[in-house]
Amino acid sequence: MKKVMVINGPNLNMLGVRERDVYGTDTLEEINERLRKLAGKLKLEIEFFQSNAEGEIIDKIHSCYKAYDGIIINPGAYTHYSHAISDAIKSVDIPAVEVHLSNIHRREEFRKNSVIAPSCIGQISGFGAYSYNLALYAIANYLNA
Amino acid sequence: MKKVMVINGPNLNMLGVRERDVYGTDTLEEINERLRKLAGKLKLEIEFFQSNAEGEIIDKIHSCYKAYDGIIINPGAYTHYSHAISDAIKSVDIPAVEVHLSNIHRREEFRKNSVIAPSCIGQISGFGAYSYNLALYAIANYLNA
Amino acid sequence: MKKVMVINGPNLNMLGVRERDVYGTDTLEEINERLRKLAGKLKLEIEFFQSNAEGEIIDKIHSCYKAYDGIIINPGAYTHYSHAISDAIKSVDIPAVEVHLSNIHRREEFRKNSVIAPSCIGQISGFGAYSYNLALYAIANYLNA
Amino acid sequence: MKKVMVINGPNLNMLGVRERDVYGTDTLEEINERLRKLAGKLKLEIEFFQSNAEGEIIDKIHSCYKAYDGIIINPGAYTHYSHAISDAIKSVDIPAVEVHLSNIHRREEFRKNSVIAPSCIGQISGFGAYSYNLALYAIANYLNA
Amino acid sequence: MKKVMVINGPNLNMLGVRERDVYGTDTLEEINERLRKLAGKLKLEIEFFQSNAEGEIIDKIHSCYKAYDGIIINPGAYTHYSHAISDAIKSVDIPAVEVHLSNIHRREEFRKNSVIAPSCIGQISGFGAYSYNLALYAIANYLNA
Amino acid sequence: MKKVMVINGPNLNMLGVRERDVYGTDTLEEINERLRKLAGKLKLEIEFFQSNAEGEIIDKIHSCYKAYDGIIINPGAYTHYSHAISDAIKSVDIPAVEVHLSNIHRREEFRKNSVIAPSCIGQISGFGAYSYNLALYAIANYLNA
Amino acid sequence: MKKVMVINGPNLNMLGVRERDVYGTDTLEEINERLRKLAGKLKLEIEFFQSNAEGEIIDKIHSCYKAYDGIIINPGAYTHYSHAISDAIKSVDIPAVEVHLSNIHRREEFRKNSVIAPSCIGQISGFGAYSYNLALYAIANYLNA
Amino acid sequence: MKKVMVINGPNLNMLGVRERDVYGTDTLEEINERLRKLAGKLKLEIEFFQSNAEGEIIDKIHSCYKAYDGIIINPGAYTHYSHAISDAIKSVDIPAVEVHLSNIHRREEFRKNSVIAPSCIGQISGFGAYSYNLALYAIANYLNA
Amino acid sequence: MKKVMVINGPNLNMLGVRERDVYGTDTLEEINERLRKLAGKLKLEIEFFQSNAEGEIIDKIHSCYKAYDGIIINPGAYTHYSHAISDAIKSVDIPAVEVHLSNIHRREEFRKNSVIAPSCIGQISGFGAYSYNLALYAIANYLNA
Amino acid sequence: MKKVMVINGPNLNMLGVRERDVYGTDTLEEINERLRKLAGKLKLEIEFFQSNAEGEIIDKIHSCYKAYDGIIINPGAYTHYSHAISDAIKSVDIPAVEVHLSNIHRREEFRKNSVIAPSCIGQISGFGAYSYNLALYAIANYLNA
Amino acid sequence: MKKVMVINGPNLNMLGVRERDVYGTDTLEEINERLRKLAGKLKLEIEFFQSNAEGEIIDKIHSCYKAYDGIIINPGAYTHYSHAISDAIKSVDIPAVEVHLSNIHRREEFRKNSVIAPSCIGQISGFGAYSYNLALYAIANYLNA
Amino acid sequence: MKKVMVINGPNLNMLGVRERDVYGTDTLEEINERLRKLAGKLKLEIEFFQSNAEGEIIDKIHSCYKAYDGIIINPGAYTHYSHAISDAIKSVDIPAVEVHLSNIHRREEFRKNSVIAPSCIGQISGFGAYSYNLALYAIANYLNA
Repeated sequence: MKKVMVINGPNLNMLGVRERDVYGTDTLEEINERLRKLAGKLKLEIEFFQSNAEGEIIDKIHSCYKAYDGIIINPGAYTHYSHAISDAIKSVDIPAVEVHLSNIHRREEFRKNSVIAPSCIGQISGFGAYSYNLALYAIANYLNA
Repeated sequence: MKKVMVINGPNLNMLGVRERDVYGTDTLEEINERLRKLAGKLKLEIEFFQSNAEGEIIDKIHSCYKAYDGIIINPGAYTHYSHAISDAIKSVDIPAVEVHLSNIHRREEFRKNSVIAPSCIGQISGFGAYSYNLALYAIANYLNA
Repeated sequence: MKKVMVINGPNLNMLGVRERDVYGTDTLEEINERLRKLAGKLKLEIEFFQSNAEGEIIDKIHSCYKAYDGIIINPGAYTHYSHAISDAIKSVDIPAVEVHLSNIHRREEFRKNSVIAPSCIGQISGFGAYSYNLALYAIANYLNA
Repeated sequence: MKKVMVINGPNLNMLGVRERDVYGTDTLEEINERLRKLAGKLKLEIEFFQSNAEGEIIDKIHSCYKAYDGIIINPGAYTHYSHAISDAIKSVDIPAVEVHLSNIHRREEFRKNSVIAPSCIGQISGFGAYSYNLALYAIANYLNA
Repeated sequence: MKKVMVINGPNLNMLGVRERDVYGTDTLEEINERLRKLAGKLKLEIEFFQSNAEGEIIDKIHSCYKAYDGIIINPGAYTHYSHAISDAIKSVDIPAVEVHLSNIHRREEFRKNSVIAPSCIGQISGFGAYSYNLALYAIANYLNA
Repeated sequence: MKKVMVINGPNLNMLGVRERDVYGTDTLEEINERLRKLAGKLKLEIEFFQSNAEGEIIDKIHSCYKAYDGIIINPGAYTHYSHAISDAIKSVDIPAVEVHLSNIHRREEFRKNSVIAPSCIGQISGFGAYSYNLALYAIANYLNA
Repeated sequence: MKKVMVINGPNLNMLGVRERDVYGTDTLEEINERLRKLAGKLKLEIEFFQSNAEGEIIDKIHSCYKAYDGIIINPGAYTHYSHAISDAIKSVDIPAVEVHLSNIHRREEFRKNSVIAPSCIGQISGFGAYSYNLALYAIANYLNA
Repeated sequence: MKKVMVINGPNLNMLGVRERDVYGTDTLEEINERLRKLAGKLKLEIEFFQSNAEGEIIDKIHSCYKAYDGIIINPGAYTHYSHAISDAIKSVDIPAVEVHLSNIHRREEFRKNSVIAPSCIGQISGFGAYSYNLALYAIANYLNA
Repeated sequence: MKKVMVINGPNLNMLGVRERDVYGTDTLEEINERLRKLAGKLKLEIEFFQSNAEGEIIDKIHSCYKAYDGIIINPGAYTHYSHAISDAIKSVDIPAVEVHLSNIHRREEFRKNSVIAPSCIGQISGFGAYSYNLALYAIANYLNA
Repeated sequence: MKKVMVINGPNLNMLGVRERDVYGTDTLEEINERLRKLAGKLKLEIEFFQSNAEGEIIDKIHSCYKAYDGIIINPGAYTHYSHAISDAIKSVDIPAVEVHLSNIHRREEFRKNSVIAPSCIGQISGFGAYSYNLALYAIANYLNA
Repeated sequence: MKKVMVINGPNLNMLGVRERDVYGTDTLEEINERLRKLAGKLKLEIEFFQSNAEGEIIDKIHSCYKAYDGIIINPGAYTHYSHAISDAIKSVDIPAVEVHLSNIHRREEFRKNSVIAPSCIGQISGFGAYSYNLALYAIANYLNA
Repeated sequence: MKKVMVINGPNLNMLGVRERDVYGTDTLEEINERLRKLAGKLKLEIEFFQSNAEGEIIDKIHSCYKAYDGIIINPGAYTHYSHAISDAIKSVDIPAVEVHLSNIHRREEFRKNSVIAPSCIGQISGFGAYSYNLALYAIANYLNA
């Protein structure tokens, strides 16, 4: 059974707690729970990790080396400047999907550019919590191909 | 039953005919056929349109007004400069999903920016032909929400 | 009697149909009708053309050569990138007035720049449907001078 | 009867005196005289002000507060850098029309950008002295709407 | 007793008169009155000056030479382009504090840059009328140090 | 016998009709006639196509696939923004030569950049109608090599 | 009694230890001690936190949610690139004041821009250790208003 | 006898009063006195004007029309943004020489660009008070040629 | 008989010696030899010059004054920064054709811009050694016209 | 005996584990071991530290204050944006050498700029693992000078 | 007696030979002859040097070290990119004056910037051949001060 | 025995002669002498070349083809614009090391970018004369690997 690591970056632990009008009422735990169910249907093992610290996210990515088959990552604001996370993904050579709750391409100018994207196979952005589901479908399809 | 229009822009009629190593061996017709099946499962009516002409794409978007519930659009190279297509999507106020076969965020600099994105609910990029499937899942989920 | 061609670009056929709070409740036909009346008062013959296709707009401009004395053009979103339309106006050497419903100089950054302007005698922007009336006054005055 | 203030900025006092091949042979007084007549036809009261000093133009705009119903302003070269004049227009909340004799959108690069425009309802540029007439028509139409 | 000059630039005479929802209901006179009281507590002599004219503001700054010990200046829109005011402050070599009612660092792009700042000891921005109080505390502390 | 398609973009149908001082007195038909003769000498079959519409130019390029051995293209103003035409040339993988009547590298800034060039083997610019002759020589030499 | 959290970012633990000619001879502890006294006078409860780690600063901001009424933050060099800290402040919706010891607007170009500022009510910069006092006055005034 | 107007802009009235190490110990009066003597030798009539106000400088330039044969202008900080002064010089069509005490081409980046220069016959920069002497030689030579 | 000077700039003496896969196996001498033959056919006298030194190239261009009727120049890397060579061509007023072996418009960004082009009648780029032949045809045609 | 701290930033713990074709087959431990030997020859005491966390790197740099005589730092991707690390080096005032395995000046555009460099005495880039040896020679030479 | 070296850069040997309408009818020799006479009056020894080669100009500047008291240099097009000449002037530490025949500040954009200026005491631009006279006056004055 | 050519560019012949506080008291000859000794220890043959002329440096690089095994080059100011020297290094395909006395990454903005770097294996910058020693170590290590 293929294994997928889901990594959430800074401030995503606050999901569903605040700014519910913007980001929806789901907590990260509820999103993860639904993802776990979908993973079951897709015959994928799934693990979750959240951290506000760039270094911990890099450590976690390294730990996936030879241990996981796919990565789903929502890098939060690190999307726009963490070349270190981007290099980390390249260093483990595991297919990764970049996920965003909001459509970053229609927000502030600085949010349009992702320095993580060149290390990922694809990017999904704008579908709220459902963006994660799409990412899991995408990983499942990629690993089956 | 909700209706979805799938619009493909310039050069996508050449899919599967040439540069098969880059874009895969599927023709646009084969992709559409698979999408039609997925639409059936998702209880969605689906139509397809391809044109290399900016004006015809705009006309088709207008024709969706009060006739379709969702739009999936791969604007091809128009992604990067056709403010006219972007305005057209805004003018009909139908939820639209932007789709790309390749991950445009890791190609040439000019391909990173989408002038269409601000008119769409989300963007999916990088999963080959499967990007369309994900878009259809996304539209289905959006229309059910 | 002097003849004036009024050319409307992409998405202007949707005027008065949708986004009525933004662009007003007048349809393009109603605007044209009022312009026709004003033309009568100003002793000008007037014709109308709308297309979403860049190529058709260029063809129409060419067809004005030696046939029309003035052009009023609202290039819609082509304003910002169609050097081809701009060249077309220069190629027929007919005085042209650029018109915009909204004040493009206080909208998104990309809307401030007109590549059409260097081919026109002047630009009128921001007065809603009445912008066309002002353009007709301007052409009449220009042709009488 | 509605009242309109016409404000002319730096160097416009030199109109008709010099560079007559560029700006025409009309003096500012002659232009104003014709505007006064048009105002009469349009049932508008009209006043005129010219100054080369940014501060005096701001003072004059402030003095229009609760005293005038519309402003026509040709800010001359201040168009391109006087955020202070722009703020002044916003501070009195009177509909203002920005006017230029030449088509600023086809001159030097720096002349294409107006920092005044975001405070005005519209901009008219390129019709020589007749630009003022168009502005008066525009104000009249706006105040009647 | 140390003497402080408070200089307000363009449009600040309109404070409390209009756009009260944005800038508060205090007039400049009321703000000055409160500042005078605070100056009393801080054992500072205080004078006030407001002008919409760049030249008059420069003249006033020059007049402070050898006459005042500190300057509090809200340059209004001149903040963003008046290198002449900036040079004036440098020319008199009196410690100056730059004050803004709104947080200029979260407004339009052009408002983020201050050409005055390099001539001042510090900048206070975003606390409404209370920004002036903070500036007076700052000057008092600076002169006592 | 090798076959070459000559494609002319927007406004080139106006050649020789107007602005004869700038672009010469030859009509496009006369240029084509001379090219046909040169093609005969070079043992090449030659066809001609002109359109003002971006979409039609793309369609024509696609139709050359497996049918033509070389393309000569003067993309007119599309040179500077039509990534869609550029992609079309890449999609058919036929050697293409970009041609310009005027030396685009000494005109307005925007005319210096060609988005078509990365898809062509070479570019010839500045020799008037004779630029086409040079392009034909270049294609002939390329196909013989 | 209202509670205020004072957060100091990277390298501020070195205050008073080194570069004393630049940043003064006060250690962070001495600054905090004086702030504590001022807080007492202003009837505010106050806590202090310093970290060189972006992630820990974000964690601390999150921990203020529903627990603190105001935040004073000197983000050090993170000011210029940590969109993650900026998002964190927005996520807890507590009024925050940005503080800098030096006048960042007259230092290196990169130090002029704050990505934190759009999430704060105001910014105080340039008054050395006294900048913190001003921030506390500002928060007190804000919470009382 | 040819007449020359010497115009000094903002802050030049402070010359010799302060920052004597930077700008020298000469007051503007002393510089003018020496210039008057040199003018005598060169058989030129000479007048002097200084103002910190952009509008007054423009007025003075206008007043030179048909009254003076040459202008020497040190626009101070207005050099870098006063398009209005630049337009004023063009409007009177009198040969003007731009003068700077310091070498503006080796100071801050913003001081390198002169918006006044395109309206002047030449620019002299960097020779302290002697720059004015050189300008007078230059004007004398120009008027004699 | 008209005379043409062929000037090759830096590193072109290494042609055919190294990087033969990129630039072909022809040495510069072989290219020149073929050019000489073509010149014979075209009834042109032809001379050749190669130097790696900017100054020598300028000297050579000057020496063509009143001695040569046309110049073919491959400026090598000087293409992108030698305004001095560009000025030299302008100073002798001889029709010049700029030649490049590779298509500079699809290489590194800095290679797209030619500072030489504004001094030449046209540019030919991308056809390997045959680019020189095309240039000679172009010069012959130009001199015969 | 002088003491040197060698600090390695994000992803350098993956050295020799993966992408061995790019970064060589040496692990960081093997590199350190060789460095330790060289340090012995150079009569230097040497310590090693690696972390993926920006904050920990800053802490480590602070801990060198008064404890170490030189720093060798490979900041990995932090090179390009961590102004915080750069400030940390300045804050301890220990001579530091910046090291890179690959030649960052011929990689992606963003890798060319180092925000760390202004705080270091020098930079060595492009010699693989041997870059560290060179850095140690450099530090040794610097400390002996 | 103080000694001055006058250095003329690329293409200035063509002065008076061609483009006489632009640069005047004086040859460089005639200009130098007049300069020699003026030098005599000013009690200065003067030498002249012209070269089209950047390296020779640098050599000449070096040769002035301890041999000349002042340098007058017209760097021609090298003005805009030869940092090497700029460094050479700095390396000999002799006061240098930069001279231009035309007013470089009102020509093409690239001509406005001088990389030589930061190494010179001042710049004189726009007075034709008389610019050299002014430079000599300036050097004389500087050496006497 | 492997052979290394050391090339020094413009102004480096002035080393040790002037600006000794900046560049040290060593002359280039002394540096070379020390390098020669180190080369002996490293069993390398070494030659030296210095020129202020770009063309001569290119010639020298060409002459190394098949004659030298390594190049050490300090291109002086040519570092920042001589694409011709960069191309020359590529054309001979000899491993080259770029050397700088000062740390170019903390000097003026224009000095940070090296157009030579993409042709070299590595860059060493900031260690004064010792930078050359490091370069020789680097070349020796590279040639032995």
